[in-house]
Amino acid sequence: MSSVYGENLRLSIFGQSHSPAVGMTLDGLPAGNKIDMDELKRFLARRAPGQNAWSTARREKDEPEFISGLVNDTLCGAPLTAVIRNTDANSGDYEAISETPRPGHADYTAQIRYSGFQDKRGGGHFSGRLTLPLCVAGGVCLQLLKAEGITVMARAKSIGDVLDTGSFDRPVAEKAFPAADDASGERMRAAIFQAAREGDSLGGVVECVALGVPAGLGDPMFDGMENRIARAVFAIPAVKGVEFGEGFAAARLRGSQNNDGYEIREGRVGLKSNHAGGILGGITDGMPVVVRAAFKPTPSIAKEQMSVDMNTMQPVLLSVPGRHDPCVVPRAVPCVEAAVAIALYDALLARRREKP
Amino acid sequence: MSSVYGENLRLSIFGQSHSPAVGMTLDGLPAGNKIDMDELKRFLARRAPGQNAWSTARREKDEPEFISGLVNDTLCGAPLTAVIRNTDANSGDYEAISETPRPGHADYTAQIRYSGFQDKRGGGHFSGRLTLPLCVAGGVCLQLLKAEGITVMARAKSIGDVLDTGSFDRPVAEKAFPAADDASGERMRAAIFQAAREGDSLGGVVECVALGVPAGLGDPMFDGMENRIARAVFAIPAVKGVEFGEGFAAARLRGSQNNDGYEIREGRVGLKSNHAGGILGGITDGMPVVVRAAFKPTPSIAKEQMSVDMNTMQPVLLSVPGRHDPCVVPRAVPCVEAAVAIALYDALLARRREKP
Amino acid sequence: MSSVYGENLRLSIFGQSHSPAVGMTLDGLPAGNKIDMDELKRFLARRAPGQNAWSTARREKDEPEFISGLVNDTLCGAPLTAVIRNTDANSGDYEAISETPRPGHADYTAQIRYSGFQDKRGGGHFSGRLTLPLCVAGGVCLQLLKAEGITVMARAKSIGDVLDTGSFDRPVAEKAFPAADDASGERMRAAIFQAAREGDSLGGVVECVALGVPAGLGDPMFDGMENRIARAVFAIPAVKGVEFGEGFAAARLRGSQNNDGYEIREGRVGLKSNHAGGILGGITDGMPVVVRAAFKPTPSIAKEQMSVDMNTMQPVLLSVPGRHDPCVVPRAVPCVEAAVAIALYDALLARRREKP
Amino acid sequence: MSSVYGENLRLSIFGQSHSPAVGMTLDGLPAGNKIDMDELKRFLARRAPGQNAWSTARREKDEPEFISGLVNDTLCGAPLTAVIRNTDANSGDYEAISETPRPGHADYTAQIRYSGFQDKRGGGHFSGRLTLPLCVAGGVCLQLLKAEGITVMARAKSIGDVLDTGSFDRPVAEKAFPAADDASGERMRAAIFQAAREGDSLGGVVECVALGVPAGLGDPMFDGMENRIARAVFAIPAVKGVEFGEGFAAARLRGSQNNDGYEIREGRVGLKSNHAGGILGGITDGMPVVVRAAFKPTPSIAKEQMSVDMNTMQPVLLSVPGRHDPCVVPRAVPCVEAAVAIALYDALLARRREKP
Repeated sequence: MSSVYGENLRLSIFGQSHSPAVGMTLDGLPAGNKIDMDELKRFLARRAPGQNAWSTARREKDEPEFISGLVNDTLCGAPLTAVIRNTDANSGDYEAISETPRPGHADYTAQIRYSGFQDKRGGGHFSGRLTLPLCVAGGVCLQLLKAEGITVMARAKSIGDVLDTGSFDRPVAEKAFPAADDASGERMRAAIFQAAREGDSLGGVVECVALGVPAGLGDPMFDGMENRIARAVFAIPAVKGVEFGEGFAAARLRGSQNNDGYEIREGRVGLKSNHAGGILGGITDGMPVVVRAAFKPTPSIAKEQMSVDMNTMQPVLLSVPGRHDPCVVPRAVPCVEAAVAIALYDALLARRREKP
Repeated sequence: MSSVYGENLRLSIFGQSHSPAVGMTLDGLPAGNKIDMDELKRFLARRAPGQNAWSTARREKDEPEFISGLVNDTLCGAPLTAVIRNTDANSGDYEAISETPRPGHADYTAQIRYSGFQDKRGGGHFSGRLTLPLCVAGGVCLQLLKAEGITVMARAKSIGDVLDTGSFDRPVAEKAFPAADDASGERMRAAIFQAAREGDSLGGVVECVALGVPAGLGDPMFDGMENRIARAVFAIPAVKGVEFGEGFAAARLRGSQNNDGYEIREGRVGLKSNHAGGILGGITDGMPVVVRAAFKPTPSIAKEQMSVDMNTMQPVLLSVPGRHDPCVVPRAVPCVEAAVAIALYDALLARRREKP
Repeated sequence: MSSVYGENLRLSIFGQSHSPAVGMTLDGLPAGNKIDMDELKRFLARRAPGQNAWSTARREKDEPEFISGLVNDTLCGAPLTAVIRNTDANSGDYEAISETPRPGHADYTAQIRYSGFQDKRGGGHFSGRLTLPLCVAGGVCLQLLKAEGITVMARAKSIGDVLDTGSFDRPVAEKAFPAADDASGERMRAAIFQAAREGDSLGGVVECVALGVPAGLGDPMFDGMENRIARAVFAIPAVKGVEFGEGFAAARLRGSQNNDGYEIREGRVGLKSNHAGGILGGITDGMPVVVRAAFKPTPSIAKEQMSVDMNTMQPVLLSVPGRHDPCVVPRAVPCVEAAVAIALYDALLARRREKP
Repeated sequence: MSSVYGENLRLSIFGQSHSPAVGMTLDGLPAGNKIDMDELKRFLARRAPGQNAWSTARREKDEPEFISGLVNDTLCGAPLTAVIRNTDANSGDYEAISETPRPGHADYTAQIRYSGFQDKRGGGHFSGRLTLPLCVAGGVCLQLLKAEGITVMARAKSIGDVLDTGSFDRPVAEKAFPAADDASGERMRAAIFQAAREGDSLGGVVECVALGVPAGLGDPMFDGMENRIARAVFAIPAVKGVEFGEGFAAARLRGSQNNDGYEIREGRVGLKSNHAGGILGGITDGMPVVVRAAFKPTPSIAKEQMSVDMNTMQPVLLSVPGRHDPCVVPRAVPCVEAAVAIALYDALLARRREKP
């Protein structure tokens, strides 16, 4: 299989960049919750293209149509399916498609994997457009988590060499740029412009925090919260690393620095710090879940790169003009929220069956 | 569920630190391959405790007994099950078990997750001892991968602040210390001793490389090679981050630096560099697969830490003496090889069904 | 979860009788095969309503739109998703929906299962209309099996007390009534008319045969071909029994009667008879796979039945007029073919990974 | 994969007839329930061989050793693993194993499926001995169901032509022969003796009833209770048909006969009859779940049968002497209880996550 996720939920994502539509099915949601469609649209707007000077010009209405699973916007127990039309797709020009794989893209690996039958138009099933149905699924899970008192929020922690110096203690969803510190956000924005002007691109790190997560979610070994979240977050194109709490920095700490001591707080057991990022032994400990995802720089750049023509087997100097974000991080922020929300809600359902 | 992994394989790991045995079942292995038991034992010896001055003194024979799946050491198609007795377990002293959770351990989260019914002896199902059946499964997969021309090898990339400065172009399995550069290994060993002397512990980074992996393994989105490998590697206790290729460093690179160009090499398409760590769009590209896992410092330390007595709900100063490695990295090196091998072999079987 | 099937394939079915659409996603199909859309339409026409005097008058175009997974009708490796609009649905009259469960339907159990939030219009997700996406998935699998030399064909083996006396050695797809013997078919048709005239309904048995199935498909225990096929066939509403080969009749035979002896045929091992229905130990033996499914009589009948009003908690005499087939068997024949084809193709992919 | 079952539970069964042991792992059981080992042993004794004159003489202690998942016989949340040694196995005589497939057995299909590498000793993984770990898993689930007020009980409904004429309203577990009517049981016993004397064997039907099952278990389509139970029951060797409620007889009824009307009973909605066998739309309706499984006659018989020598490719007349039950039905009765209990408990856990 491939585009299927979940243990209690089953999320199936489908579509190609230039197929008639993209979409998703979430099977296993409990019946009874009402979906706030306006809230969902606001969430999706955060990953929508065409919002900024640098963002891809592709403009699609991107409104999900729910064709299954709802009665009057309330979950009815049937699988929840949404489709979003690819109105902007121009499916005519098959022949124009180059046999020259873009460096850093899945063009070459898809060619091998699918023996040349993959959809070559616009990245096919590997397109960043597939994060749209991921965000539909995630947007629904975010609402269901909110009803349980859980908030998931992400920000651009860094872009290129620019760090967000702000304290991440509230959502940045309303901001023009998804950084906690506005001055940092301005510097990030400037760095992206600069890279774009040079025909180049930038990567960055998205940090996601889940507040209000009860202790006890997740399972040992392969279904720990880290495993579950990592499996979901690596589904976002361009992610090359995932870490929790101190993450890679923990490798340089000593036990006495990295361990989180316990204390009594308001008559209950609590942790004095959160180096663990809210997860111990794969199971949440009641502290905020903290996860960071490293995004590589957008591979599509105007600068010339070495490639080959797979038909003639000759070297080719390739420049990718097109409508590509010079940095995916700003639009990836809600995608990471979506992936984390899906993983958390799946784990929350898993937990319920053991605690009647 | 919890301790089950795989799409084509089904790996199920069982046991507790002080239950009669630990073990694993690997369902889905093709019949016909012979398992070299001596090679498997040599592999398991690399994670065995008690080898070094600093390593835990627990000494068990740790020889897996295969109770299903073999006829004359040859895979027969029945599920492969191995059990390893916990000969060193002393299951008598139930009462002595403290209600004081060790900072950095799963003691507290397991208490919440299993409502106090978890096995508290020696970490129960959360014990590092469960990496033994993981290594049995991985050791089998390593042999099956070798038969396909694939070599998986890992090393200690860093321990605390000490880096392995060596070039990682051959296995370190035979070495006394699993670093490519012996002088670096000596410095690592010294750093571990020093931390132990101070009643403290160290973390580190394990780097794993898979050579000979054909292009085309892995699937888009949730079953990409990164997703699959991350899900397996995060099953090893103490892992807090996983990255591929440039990983988190890619977030600071530009597209023109991070993209791997293509070239014609011996009449075939090849990549000119390997910033991607052998994976593009979730699918292997024919370059070595490179993955790094960040290990936090061993939580069990002699230094006093703040904890609480969950019975009396009073604060407690806790020192964990016992037999604990001051750094798990050296013994974790084969564990990472095991996890990566399991993920790769599962993906290799998945690939086969589409390429008759 | 609920409406998800498969080990190598992942079939996800969605939609309600009166939601905007029904549809399906088949994830895991190998890339490269071309789908013959005309053949698929002809297959779907066999389950289409409104073909016969007795069949429900609901008339919808029922043409699947493939929104993912195809490039020029050729499988491209992305998940294959088809949606079929519910053009005939009248979603306005929510309020008119009775709180009186129809005997023999899922009305009552869905009420309990989904706490009253289920879609009550037209049976919701439990509607027979959901066999349409099942047939889309099955129709695709039938074509993929045909490319491997496997033919799946079903017939009405009995309707009420009328048996099909014909020898089932070729497909009945082209026939006006899906029985091997035309005179039997006429008697079946007459029996259905008679029941309908009396405000009643009939059940029956569908027999399905798969020819050309190679020996070696299926796995021991839970993934035997019987398990796989039964799990798929019981997804068709109204199925209350599934049997293979002699099935329940085998319970009255002696071993010497029921065993299929072996012989040498054209230099190869063959079976002398097929009491086993082509499956031994869960694995195909090279003989035709023979499966029969028992369908209960359509629960919706004009005759009055005892029910209750769940609001007033008073007994109610209920007559279900509406547009309901007095016997689902004729239209169920292609549904059984579809279910068996999905199970066989899934097992065929499973087999491939072990036989490189 | 093969021998893995379950959605919330993960049951993995391993072992061969002559491997060192057989066993099972049940992952996903909630922590906290105590297992009554004596009750479990009494349950296992019901499928034990060697109890009757006709039953196979193989005598093994067959006591499961739980090597994971328990602390003082209480479920601790770790995977529950039990192993049972094959003490009676004589693994020396590899060479003596015939290349002549026994008619009606998996010998031939296993040979194809595993390319000749299957364990040929005593049926290997296809042996009826694998129902022992199935019964261990089922015996545990039976106890967990009992704690929820659910009783699962089975009986021999028929053996050959002999019907159990008794009313099945209480368990037959304590009886010498598992029939409701003792006189019928005597006739069944006599029929088995007669067949054995003639070197032949008998089949039969096992009926299983689950009392106390709440309405609302099971899911639509592929995870309906019928699908779940059928998938589990077909894992028992020799089962060739599974039906629910009226089952195949429903195919000959009219809707007005087969529908179960509703009534108000003690202020709640109830059903007036149980033709549906307690399941509507895949979901339990609160009535007893009724399932019947058809067992074919034991294939191993003394009477000569046609087979072939796969080495010489010559026809062979084969008589299978050995220690084989002339009818598996009496010992299969607890196996069906086990399979149904596993399916029900898995569905019960699934239900919980939606009903917090």
